[in-house]
Amino acid sequence: MPYIERGQSDIINVEFSNHQYPILIGKSLENYNLCEYSSSHQFLIVTHKNLHDLYSSKLRFSSPIDIEINWCFIEEGEIHKANDSLQKVLSQAIKLKYRRNSCFIAFGGGVIGDITGFAASIYQRGVELIQIPTTILSQVDSSIGGKTAINHPLGKNMIGTFYQPNAVVIDTSLLETLPKSELVSGLAEVIKYALINDAPFFDWLDANIDNLLTRDTSAINYAVNKSCKHKQAIVEVDEKEKGVRALLNLGHTFGHALEALTNYEKYLHGEAISIGMVIASEVSKRMSLITQEEHNKIVVILKKAGLPVSIDSSLGISIDSLINQLFLDKKNVKSSALKTILLKGIGKAFILEDTPIEIVKDVLGKSFS
Amino acid sequence: MPYIERGQSDIINVEFSNHQYPILIGKSLENYNLCEYSSSHQFLIVTHKNLHDLYSSKLRFSSPIDIEINWCFIEEGEIHKANDSLQKVLSQAIKLKYRRNSCFIAFGGGVIGDITGFAASIYQRGVELIQIPTTILSQVDSSIGGKTAINHPLGKNMIGTFYQPNAVVIDTSLLETLPKSELVSGLAEVIKYALINDAPFFDWLDANIDNLLTRDTSAINYAVNKSCKHKQAIVEVDEKEKGVRALLNLGHTFGHALEALTNYEKYLHGEAISIGMVIASEVSKRMSLITQEEHNKIVVILKKAGLPVSIDSSLGISIDSLINQLFLDKKNVKSSALKTILLKGIGKAFILEDTPIEIVKDVLGKSFS
Repeated sequence: MPYIERGQSDIINVEFSNHQYPILIGKSLENYNLCEYSSSHQFLIVTHKNLHDLYSSKLRFSSPIDIEINWCFIEEGEIHKANDSLQKVLSQAIKLKYRRNSCFIAFGGGVIGDITGFAASIYQRGVELIQIPTTILSQVDSSIGGKTAINHPLGKNMIGTFYQPNAVVIDTSLLETLPKSELVSGLAEVIKYALINDAPFFDWLDANIDNLLTRDTSAINYAVNKSCKHKQAIVEVDEKEKGVRALLNLGHTFGHALEALTNYEKYLHGEAISIGMVIASEVSKRMSLITQEEHNKIVVILKKAGLPVSIDSSLGISIDSLINQLFLDKKNVKSSALKTILLKGIGKAFILEDTPIEIVKDVLGKSFS
Repeated sequence: MPYIERGQSDIINVEFSNHQYPILIGKSLENYNLCEYSSSHQFLIVTHKNLHDLYSSKLRFSSPIDIEINWCFIEEGEIHKANDSLQKVLSQAIKLKYRRNSCFIAFGGGVIGDITGFAASIYQRGVELIQIPTTILSQVDSSIGGKTAINHPLGKNMIGTFYQPNAVVIDTSLLETLPKSELVSGLAEVIKYALINDAPFFDWLDANIDNLLTRDTSAINYAVNKSCKHKQAIVEVDEKEKGVRALLNLGHTFGHALEALTNYEKYLHGEAISIGMVIASEVSKRMSLITQEEHNKIVVILKKAGLPVSIDSSLGISIDSLINQLFLDKKNVKSSALKTILLKGIGKAFILEDTPIEIVKDVLGKSFS
């Protein structure tokens, strides 16, 4: 099997026209001197209390000059990806007299990464940022590519910036303490990369899903590394999501609508995206873009990963409310057309600017269980 | 006199590595079709109610497709350059279902420009922006160069971004309704450009200050045009204030400290900057960088413009509190050294990273009246 050997390290460089940075992956966190990735002497580490207690000793800062390190604790949960957490980070930085050459470190999952990245992008018009993602979802997706955001009471991720970090440091051994449901949720994004443009990776995932679920180090490292490379390749050519980056939203248009209608309380992100990918696959099938067999393979791998593939009827979500929500998604730039990401095959995603609403409605109607 | 003739228009192009935009100046506002400077069909105009009532008929949108125009009113005053106004703009955009390809228009002075620019930079990770500054201060300074910000309860301009507009549209005829005190305040920034690197412009200002105070169209157009060109030239080479752009802070280190200690209630921005420039000039003189005669010329022109040149003793500000405040200024990147902008002559500003504190204290002690 094309595993990366245990302990093998890798550096994936992300290059934009006016900024580049490394994704460091494969080594244990304590092997990195974080001062090497910042010119600052003031570090503000934003995290959850439990991550601090578990892993703070793994963060290493070695510098010939005096450095200042402070911690800022954010409550866990999507509900705290909001203005109050943002203000906590900003106020703490101001109270500590952090200067415009300071460095914020996001040490946590997607919520921590998004809040900290956003705070770094607006504190004194932008300070340095290091991302240290601690969940599989953030390691393969949200920490890479520079999207930051908080939710607004009226919409998810409505307020944010594009802001690239100085470095992303990924230690997959941190995933050992990740709850099983979070691991499973993260696998949805991994499978997404395979569906978008890597059929061999899809086959590999199909053969190795059990190794991933048992957290086999080599398997996890391979899957995370592969996913990071897919994400890097796409964001590099389209930093601000003007075109091809939209492919990464496979399953997200439908998934976001589900999350929104259930107040982000019923489904983990990856779970909603899993259902969204099944819907996208089914729409593709109805449009004769993929075969029944391909569709089945997609449903099977998601099921094997432990992900949901249909909407829970007991939640009482109506098709009309889903359709309405789809048109609110900020990725839908035009108000009258429904933009979705569909499949022409496994590993062949494409953007459809004007999806036939009747087919979508019909598919949604049969997506409940 | 080297006046621009009445009605003569000019375009100043601001060019960055990955973005460029025009400053349009010299024509009346209704001559511009704002749709030409945006690819959007959704416009949100952020302004004050009184500016809407005075000038809304001057804003022209002409497009072959249907466009949507909405207004968002912000209360006047620096106290409203805060999170509540920002949230008002963002919430209104979300409620109106403004999409990520919408365009925000800042129609007002510096407060409106800073809030709207910041809102545009973070709404759905960035939408289009057009700046239409309506005060002399915003026409010659804040609308150009992409600095956006709101104040934080713990510090001025602490939260913001660098975000460049699609265009800056300047109509100096809007200044006819500007209160005299605002006109005078704006002249401080105009004089600042002359002090930084344009001795001939200083002489011109010295000869024409009365024409500016009586709002002679030709004189105003010339001064605004000249100032814009100075600002453009400096921000182009240093968009994110890593170096030479700091020259624009002449008078601002001291001025900001004064504003902060008086809760932004006692001095208009230009008034505080005027006093700050006198202090910077006096420090320069004490360090034998400029002559007594040069210092006198600076004090005289500011007085002729109607600007204050010393701190009002009755405000009860202590020298120690001023010094403490100076070290809090976010432009001071290092915590132990005081960075100031000083003069080697009229039209010859430079950055001093480590200003002798004893001289600063001594000068501050003699800056009260």
